[in-house]
Amino acid sequence: MFKLLKKSQKSQARLGKLKTAHGEISTPFFMPIATKGAVKNLDTPELEGLGAEIILSNTYHLYLQPGMKIMKKAGGLHKFMDWPGPILTDSGGFQVFSLSKIRKILPGGVEFRSHIDGSKHLLTPKSVLEIQKVIGSDIAMILDVCPSSTAKREEVAQAVETTFQWAKQAKLALSRGTLKEQLHFAIIQGGVFKDLRLKSLKELVELDFNGYAVGGLAVGESNSQMYEVLNYLAPQMPENKPRYLMGVGTPENIVEAVRRGVDMFDCVIPTREARHGRLYLPLSLRGSSSDRGNPAGSPRRPITDFLGMTTKNKFYETINISNAKFRDDFSPINNSNLKQYTKAYLHHLFKTGEPLGMRLATLNNVGFYLQLMAEIRKGISKGKL
Amino acid sequence: MFKLLKKSQKSQARLGKLKTAHGEISTPFFMPIATKGAVKNLDTPELEGLGAEIILSNTYHLYLQPGMKIMKKAGGLHKFMDWPGPILTDSGGFQVFSLSKIRKILPGGVEFRSHIDGSKHLLTPKSVLEIQKVIGSDIAMILDVCPSSTAKREEVAQAVETTFQWAKQAKLALSRGTLKEQLHFAIIQGGVFKDLRLKSLKELVELDFNGYAVGGLAVGESNSQMYEVLNYLAPQMPENKPRYLMGVGTPENIVEAVRRGVDMFDCVIPTREARHGRLYLPLSLRGSSSDRGNPAGSPRRPITDFLGMTTKNKFYETINISNAKFRDDFSPINNSNLKQYTKAYLHHLFKTGEPLGMRLATLNNVGFYLQLMAEIRKGISKGKL
Repeated sequence: MFKLLKKSQKSQARLGKLKTAHGEISTPFFMPIATKGAVKNLDTPELEGLGAEIILSNTYHLYLQPGMKIMKKAGGLHKFMDWPGPILTDSGGFQVFSLSKIRKILPGGVEFRSHIDGSKHLLTPKSVLEIQKVIGSDIAMILDVCPSSTAKREEVAQAVETTFQWAKQAKLALSRGTLKEQLHFAIIQGGVFKDLRLKSLKELVELDFNGYAVGGLAVGESNSQMYEVLNYLAPQMPENKPRYLMGVGTPENIVEAVRRGVDMFDCVIPTREARHGRLYLPLSLRGSSSDRGNPAGSPRRPITDFLGMTTKNKFYETINISNAKFRDDFSPINNSNLKQYTKAYLHHLFKTGEPLGMRLATLNNVGFYLQLMAEIRKGISKGKL
Repeated sequence: MFKLLKKSQKSQARLGKLKTAHGEISTPFFMPIATKGAVKNLDTPELEGLGAEIILSNTYHLYLQPGMKIMKKAGGLHKFMDWPGPILTDSGGFQVFSLSKIRKILPGGVEFRSHIDGSKHLLTPKSVLEIQKVIGSDIAMILDVCPSSTAKREEVAQAVETTFQWAKQAKLALSRGTLKEQLHFAIIQGGVFKDLRLKSLKELVELDFNGYAVGGLAVGESNSQMYEVLNYLAPQMPENKPRYLMGVGTPENIVEAVRRGVDMFDCVIPTREARHGRLYLPLSLRGSSSDRGNPAGSPRRPITDFLGMTTKNKFYETINISNAKFRDDFSPINNSNLKQYTKAYLHHLFKTGEPLGMRLATLNNVGFYLQLMAEIRKGISKGKL
């Protein structure tokens, strides 16, 4: 379970340990995304080499492919994909709302058509727990209703209400037996409406889950709206339970959310952007790591040195490796895990469509995110954040 | 250079050592293909883990992309792609003939239009050596004319003649200075015409190269035609020089060619077939490694046990992992380098388009080919081949 180790003097940032069936993880942490049972372009030894302690997978996707019959025979996702560490599975709620065009919210669950073959399915608070039991995830999410960022107050209020009703049904199902050591997190909804957010939080906290997630953010609202929600919501969340901000976000989103007391993150940015050749690179004060005048790269100053500042002081840059200027840039891709390859080589791999290109870009980006989290933890530990 | 270590009593098979600027390699060997400066889906540590000692890259492709200006600045291909071992580069002759639709053979070289952007280029016997000098390959091939398998005798005779003239021009260029320790191999043409093959061989041997390749096979002729050419050609090839059969082939092609005295191979089969989900798997006498009744796989009998037989006794099978029957096949992908993953998982990765699928399939196939070569060498050493 969760153990709070340290609270920052300067912000709401916290250090903690989360104990799961497959190991203990230091918070705050970031979960690389293995939607369909594989982190795109990476394998387990690579993830371990990057320092990944936990990954995220999706109930919705695994339920449709390979399906639960196969997952059961495989002995669960850990064995299927050969990942020995903790796994968190999303409930499928968000995916039903974002991927399935035809869906219907019923009191007992959500009916939808598969985005793959159009087949009809029903997910209920109970069935998503059963699915996550078969998957064998260490942290299972409770089914929620996730409205879009443009949803009117009335729709958001209804989502909060249904999410609460479903959480009660989930709690009832859990009381009748669950996977040993599996943790269950409920998802707070309420959009950008303060009273609805606090109501959703209060209702779910009363049901007593192992952790609480903030859902329905990073769905199109502004950064300042997101931070504002965290400003009033996070201080009200149970201190002795982990706090998970779902689907967030950019490096500055993560730093700002950690400052507001969030412990857990997941986001497709590092893996998805890598596939488009967009690299996340740490910046030193002395200039860009891709500076022509400094082909070996500037000596990297730890990100934590920048965390004390506002995030207006950029601590990283993004580059598009396909850009012609990298054609003859012989500085290393980065100065940590990809010293042995130049940007010119990665540019060549993207230009010629070599699959190794996406892999190296993913190794860079996931490495950057995990390094950021390690430096954030160091920063909190040293009282800098 | 080349050292002949052992000649089989049972066949023309030979064991040897080839010394290059980047290390010594045991013959017979197989070269995984890194056409554009990367083996598709694999990185250097993976290739080393599979036991690859040498890789092949292409003058034609690297000349067009990234181009020699970049290659020069990169300090050559070894550094560019971070591969520390030997590299052989094909001359570009074959690629001009197979990829470029518009080409013109001149006495001094071949004029062609790039298959990428239609730009016009001229490769000469001298310029391909200069290009391979910039690439820094350990073994450079001499420019040749490679006719198709349907070419008439007259066209093949002309190709033999032009190849000889170009080899003379190459020799002249080499006499004026070359890369220290780079080896130069000439390519024998002549199609399936015995007299032309022997003429081409005689002419090129008189020019004295470090090794001799058989070109213009595996271009559409039958297996028996290929073996027939080797039957009369290989015994005439210099015994103290390495013999390279270009672009070959299936596992049985390789075994048959080794029997006829060939030392070196390259082929796109293991990497290309992997991308289509076709896996090469060793067979034991007790049945298929994908037998349902034996999920852990049969104890594998070494391939060498089968090499003493005719290749009618299949020593391997190919499977299409996308086939529905692998949906719930929980036997390991193979029993050597991919024990940790099941066929059902690989099936799932291909069905969901996860890039890790192609990587695992490539690791399986290249692993199989390199294992085959190791067992062939063991077989010759033990007098079984």
